[in-house]
Amino acid sequence: MAKIIKLNHIAVAVTDIAEALEFWENALGIKLDHVEDVPSQKAKVAFLPIGESEIELVQPTSQDTGTARFLETRGPGMHHLCFEVDDIDGMLADLKTKGIRLINEEPLELDGRKLAFIHPKCANGVLIELYEITNKKIPTDS
Amino acid sequence: MAKIIKLNHIAVAVTDIAEALEFWENALGIKLDHVEDVPSQKAKVAFLPIGESEIELVQPTSQDTGTARFLETRGPGMHHLCFEVDDIDGMLADLKTKGIRLINEEPLELDGRKLAFIHPKCANGVLIELYEITNKKIPTDS
Repeated sequence: MAKIIKLNHIAVAVTDIAEALEFWENALGIKLDHVEDVPSQKAKVAFLPIGESEIELVQPTSQDTGTARFLETRGPGMHHLCFEVDDIDGMLADLKTKGIRLINEEPLELDGRKLAFIHPKCANGVLIELYEITNKKIPTDS
Repeated sequence: MAKIIKLNHIAVAVTDIAEALEFWENALGIKLDHVEDVPSQKAKVAFLPIGESEIELVQPTSQDTGTARFLETRGPGMHHLCFEVDDIDGMLADLKTKGIRLINEEPLELDGRKLAFIHPKCANGVLIELYEITNKKIPTDS
């Protein structure tokens, strides 16, 4: 059966990454790995690894995104958490069988990974991303 | 300098642990370690380890708690995240020097651990717990 491997990241919605890094990097001392423009998410993201997980600071670059709407209605804060899974297709099929509402019925494929979101209504108000790294797989000849 | 070791847990505020476990344990497949009454927090807590971290489902047992007020005003959802640190006194001293607002200026001591909360106003709306396990230390003769 498909299973969760680890907590991949916690995404924090912020209005200004440079300002947010004053706290997360300079005050708290979590070393910034890099900041990246992520056009597919219409966001700029700062990646701060901590142990086997990451804090991701997400600053929307367009008003037309879930994160921008979240910021507008609730202000900055924890936006979602992401679990890395070993088999996202199997996991989604299993969740559907169990009646769990999914935002993405089929995984989105993006840069060597597949991802899908579970609806927070089914997860105690928590927006959960499931994430499978696919480009680590060794290709077979068959 | 004091530093963060890992993400210890993410606390999710829920109204009913048994109902919440239907999702986190039965649907998502995270194995429940145990459920515990935590009188100091006026809460019942379900511990679900995942990799080096944990999901903690927190159901308040009194209306007179921050978690109960959180549930009342915002509904269930991610309540706080907790970082394990190697030296909480050093970390708090450092944060104070840097002008970071703390909920607990001095750590609370509880069952072999010391903990303190950073005010969410200074942390992009995220309530952050700092946590040091102290009963692992080997006592010296001096």
